[in-house]
Amino acid sequence: MEPGGDAARLGLGRAARALPPRLPPLLLLPPLLLGRGLRVAAAASSSGAAAEDSSAMEELATEKEAEESHRQDSVSLLTFILLLTLTILTIWLFKHRRVRFLHETGLAMIYGLIVGVILRYGTPATSGHDKSLSCTQEDRAFSTLLVNVSGKFFEYTLKGEISPGKLNSVEQNDMLRKVTFDPEVFFNILLPPIIFHAGYSLKKRHFFRNLGSILAYAFLGTAVSCFIIGNLMYGVVKLMKMVGQLSDKFYYTDCLFFGAIISATDPVTVLAIFNELHADVDLYALLFGESVLNDAVAIVLSSSIVAYQPAGLNTHAFDAAAFFKSVGIFLGIFSGSFTMGAVTGVVTALVTKFTKLHCFPLLETALFFLMSWSTFLLAEACGFTGVVAVLFCGITQAHYTYNNLSVESRSRTKQLFEVLHFLAENFIFSYMGLALFTFQKHVFSPIFIIGAFVAIFLGRAAHIYPLSFFLNLGRRHKIGWNFQHMMMFSGLRGAMAFALAIRDTASYARQMMFTTTLLIVFFTVWIVGGGTTPMLSWLNIRVGVDPDQDPPPNNDSFQVLQGDGPDSAGGNRTKQESAWLFRLWYSFDHNYLKPILTHSGPPLTTTLPAWCGLLARCLTSPQVYDNQEPLREEDSDFILTEGDLTLTYGDSTVTANGSSGSHTASVSLEGCRKTKSSSEEALERDLGMGDQKVSSRGTRLVFPLEDNA
Amino acid sequence: MEPGGDAARLGLGRAARALPPRLPPLLLLPPLLLGRGLRVAAAASSSGAAAEDSSAMEELATEKEAEESHRQDSVSLLTFILLLTLTILTIWLFKHRRVRFLHETGLAMIYGLIVGVILRYGTPATSGHDKSLSCTQEDRAFSTLLVNVSGKFFEYTLKGEISPGKLNSVEQNDMLRKVTFDPEVFFNILLPPIIFHAGYSLKKRHFFRNLGSILAYAFLGTAVSCFIIGNLMYGVVKLMKMVGQLSDKFYYTDCLFFGAIISATDPVTVLAIFNELHADVDLYALLFGESVLNDAVAIVLSSSIVAYQPAGLNTHAFDAAAFFKSVGIFLGIFSGSFTMGAVTGVVTALVTKFTKLHCFPLLETALFFLMSWSTFLLAEACGFTGVVAVLFCGITQAHYTYNNLSVESRSRTKQLFEVLHFLAENFIFSYMGLALFTFQKHVFSPIFIIGAFVAIFLGRAAHIYPLSFFLNLGRRHKIGWNFQHMMMFSGLRGAMAFALAIRDTASYARQMMFTTTLLIVFFTVWIVGGGTTPMLSWLNIRVGVDPDQDPPPNNDSFQVLQGDGPDSAGGNRTKQESAWLFRLWYSFDHNYLKPILTHSGPPLTTTLPAWCGLLARCLTSPQVYDNQEPLREEDSDFILTEGDLTLTYGDSTVTANGSSGSHTASVSLEGCRKTKSSSEEALERDLGMGDQKVSSRGTRLVFPLEDNA
Repeated sequence: MEPGGDAARLGLGRAARALPPRLPPLLLLPPLLLGRGLRVAAAASSSGAAAEDSSAMEELATEKEAEESHRQDSVSLLTFILLLTLTILTIWLFKHRRVRFLHETGLAMIYGLIVGVILRYGTPATSGHDKSLSCTQEDRAFSTLLVNVSGKFFEYTLKGEISPGKLNSVEQNDMLRKVTFDPEVFFNILLPPIIFHAGYSLKKRHFFRNLGSILAYAFLGTAVSCFIIGNLMYGVVKLMKMVGQLSDKFYYTDCLFFGAIISATDPVTVLAIFNELHADVDLYALLFGESVLNDAVAIVLSSSIVAYQPAGLNTHAFDAAAFFKSVGIFLGIFSGSFTMGAVTGVVTALVTKFTKLHCFPLLETALFFLMSWSTFLLAEACGFTGVVAVLFCGITQAHYTYNNLSVESRSRTKQLFEVLHFLAENFIFSYMGLALFTFQKHVFSPIFIIGAFVAIFLGRAAHIYPLSFFLNLGRRHKIGWNFQHMMMFSGLRGAMAFALAIRDTASYARQMMFTTTLLIVFFTVWIVGGGTTPMLSWLNIRVGVDPDQDPPPNNDSFQVLQGDGPDSAGGNRTKQESAWLFRLWYSFDHNYLKPILTHSGPPLTTTLPAWCGLLARCLTSPQVYDNQEPLREEDSDFILTEGDLTLTYGDSTVTANGSSGSHTASVSLEGCRKTKSSSEEALERDLGMGDQKVSSRGTRLVFPLEDNA
Repeated sequence: MEPGGDAARLGLGRAARALPPRLPPLLLLPPLLLGRGLRVAAAASSSGAAAEDSSAMEELATEKEAEESHRQDSVSLLTFILLLTLTILTIWLFKHRRVRFLHETGLAMIYGLIVGVILRYGTPATSGHDKSLSCTQEDRAFSTLLVNVSGKFFEYTLKGEISPGKLNSVEQNDMLRKVTFDPEVFFNILLPPIIFHAGYSLKKRHFFRNLGSILAYAFLGTAVSCFIIGNLMYGVVKLMKMVGQLSDKFYYTDCLFFGAIISATDPVTVLAIFNELHADVDLYALLFGESVLNDAVAIVLSSSIVAYQPAGLNTHAFDAAAFFKSVGIFLGIFSGSFTMGAVTGVVTALVTKFTKLHCFPLLETALFFLMSWSTFLLAEACGFTGVVAVLFCGITQAHYTYNNLSVESRSRTKQLFEVLHFLAENFIFSYMGLALFTFQKHVFSPIFIIGAFVAIFLGRAAHIYPLSFFLNLGRRHKIGWNFQHMMMFSGLRGAMAFALAIRDTASYARQMMFTTTLLIVFFTVWIVGGGTTPMLSWLNIRVGVDPDQDPPPNNDSFQVLQGDGPDSAGGNRTKQESAWLFRLWYSFDHNYLKPILTHSGPPLTTTLPAWCGLLARCLTSPQVYDNQEPLREEDSDFILTEGDLTLTYGDSTVTANGSSGSHTASVSLEGCRKTKSSSEEALERDLGMGDQKVSSRGTRLVFPLEDNA
């Protein structure tokens, strides 16, 4: 370090342009944010001519540097755009030639890797030394420094700490710094559109049919997986300590944290192939639903583990109070985020219902976008998790608001989020490839890595097989062995694990986790992605199914369809309860929520008690009165969805297509006698005619690249 | 200032979380970017238990503060989202009730003002004093400080200078700071989508018909207006000096700079009303074309003026060398940016033509988006102006790439940019309202403000009337007095003037300009926006015209249509040349560019010389051979556009609808004998049948809110 090395070149001129040469690495979207720096108001200079002259020269030098930096920012963003463009073109080529062994995300990673190597070894080390100076008299770091330079005050903000050993290496390669973004970018810019899209494009029908199993896999399964991986890794860490491979602290909570971040599965590759091959819809729903929800679970779980702070000095040992506090935090954050998301969704539904905004699709789309985004901000402002809130907001929007939108806005909103999702996802994956070489704090520990691979394998196994066994006890439509193997195989890790891992790379343990996560993502995306098609055929999983068709009813369900089968009457208590719960929800949703929030459903005047007639009249959409029939029909596929839901939880596989269709299951709708007529009626109509509309009107899960495939 | 006031609370813990409480004000998109700070790798701490304990406490305090700051960021972004949501709902109400005296942008400003007042006077002053410390031994400011804190190094980046008088006020209100964005955000995030949309949605037919006049207004007119306003303002400044109202320097170049930024007109309000009322299309084209191009001219002009740096010590006096350097810079930047934009557009067209990407609309849309964005970055990386490049990229994309896109991508891209444009524009306007109260460095100078209003009025008059007079000498379809008055009246200022003004508020002069610009924008948007409808009827400007119909031919043009009128044969040399130039361009575009870049036009094998037959065969789209006719037809409206262009520059008002249609003008197509047959043929077909398709297939200027109006 040579403090003040080249100081003369660097003073600030009259215009007081801030020098942004070592800007925070958050230049993601904006080439820009960092652009030509701030030109904050400067105190008027009042020096003589000579001083002004030198000041003008300095200003010139400053401007040049600022410009240079701006250019570098632009170039580094261009690099990513180039990467994405290349990826898009190659994806097209692959799709065109029907190559399936490598998914777009795998491809994005490979291109990222290549560019990473080039940047790492191909670019000259530009040093920023002369721009720094040392100021050693303090004994603490502050967030802001005010530096008094011959009467002028300059404001500095803290960027972070630099470990002494890295003082040189950190500064050596500006380009590497430029392409290394602030981790929060992933969490706050790239993940929300991905997660929202997942919620918004949820194929509700199959999702709700398997809701119980999905919830079990996502909540119980993720927790099981997290604890098993955490404990196994703690063993690995102990082993590493014994053989002297561990040079720094690695607590039990760190291991659990690793378990949490690595438990978020992201079978985007598998699902893309499923979609392309039209593989079994129930398996699809199980995998998709699980991965969507376990992302949310993993986020909340990891922040609960971070919050686990034992009281005593002897930290990082088990403490029951702290444990329950963590559980409380988990529940609090999860339910809070859920509520936020649902509430914003409901508000949007109300606004779109009670205004005639649908006459102006642009306004409607803009409002929809803003409201969905505000969910994220609202949750963050209240201390909940924005990403989780966004997920539930997406589901609510799809369930209610979508009905109120104009036809144009429906396609607009879907397409908008589809594009955002596509770009964000491929960006993350290409960044992952890049990070393997440009991230400067990798800790490669072979034992830890091998241990982690074994642990995630065991964790996944301990999650899928026992849970499936228990679920099969209660399920009519069993989850077969081949499905279980496929779910086991599809447990690959992706964007969410990466985003969680990169979020905090401050300690040695976290750096090791980050490196390991990166390698796990690489491995699983490439191997599992490439092996999906062979695996499907090896496991005899049906492909070529029309996604809106259902599997031919097997014997059990057929029995039910023929009449009131013994099972549906004599199920065990748990099954009864869950079915009752969901019937309750269905009738509540159908009779109250739908009519309040959308233009469909029975008029509230018929469903609400007589004494709130005025309110009911206000809340019910006039359309429902005017032309009740057409509107109900318009919504038929949505009712259908929940018809399915009810039926499923009555443990039958009654489906919407005529072949297996009948409405015997409504026999079990005893909890909602009063409203039975209307919902049954809707159901009947749906069973008869819903099929033609389902594909065009339901919120289908449209996978990014498969539209025209 | 109490340096180190509360130091004990603030040390950095093991995790070395950066404290981001006074983050750069660029939190625009991301609640986020600024989120929970960077967690850069920290050197492993190796102190005793007591130290660790205190470090843990500090860490806790730090985390809390970081979280608090993140919350504030979220809240401030939420404020803007709320503002936009409110604006959208009120716009809907206004549209619903057909209120036209206040445009959405005016509304956004009013809401911004209200929130600004609340923030300014309603929020408690939270002080950040204890977070700062003073460090006075340097005599220069550096971009980066490395602070050695008992062995650890912390990195600080310069934020900017703070004038001594503002030391307290700047720190007093965190909320005000939070809602004040980095000016570069406007330039680098908000303007590009607005400008790209303008280029992409250009109604080419009417634009090209009036291209000559539009170019004259945009280039000559803006330059004239800039110089007149600059000189008038210099007079005002002199006056202010005389009466002692000016407390700091205000150079002649500053006045010219003001002239440049305030010459960018933005008649978004007027055009929205035009669109709604279906006012005269030629007037629409003139206003829209002028405002689109003069934005570009104003940007480049203002940066050329900044670059005007006389050589001698006696700065800010006129210097011929510096002047010509500025002119050179103007031409260089303008042509460079133009080239960048056109080249990226052409590359996108080639890629979309030669790959079968249109089978995958999502890929296509993503590619389109990325390529368009890369124009901006590329231009910035090369030192040109991204915003200008983006404009020409938009025009090129609309002219070529749009033809190659799948139907789905066409609507997707249009809708995507429409939404972005809408959000960005309303954001800027609501920010403007907010800035009047939250911007902390206003300099209100009544004399300057009154002078500026007079100057822009005179500048606009000196720009419109003389230029229209000269243009009318050469135009067949004269620009009538009522049109000239309307153009005079519509010269309001908007987003571009604001973005240019806020970009640099470092000096006293610039602050005064910023305040004045803000007031001018307010005044013109409200008054002119509200007065448009009365003005239209007062000036007898036709409304209710079908935008794709043309005005009934007046006598002059009818004469030409009947045969080879005297004027078209005996025009002066300039007219001949320009007509020749555009004929040349038309035939070149039609015969070479279109066939190379799109799937339409005549096969290259017929237009290129025989010796490059192989090349021609490679470049020509196979579709052109396979089914030449249908494809030509498909593109008819585009050919039509240029048919019009040629005709216009043959100085007639031949139009596409049957009523006035004939192809006499092709008589003047002498410069392209060889290719006449094909283009004439296309023209003939267009004249006969293009009309039905024009409205559905051309790149129409769809104004944000008018889709279903």
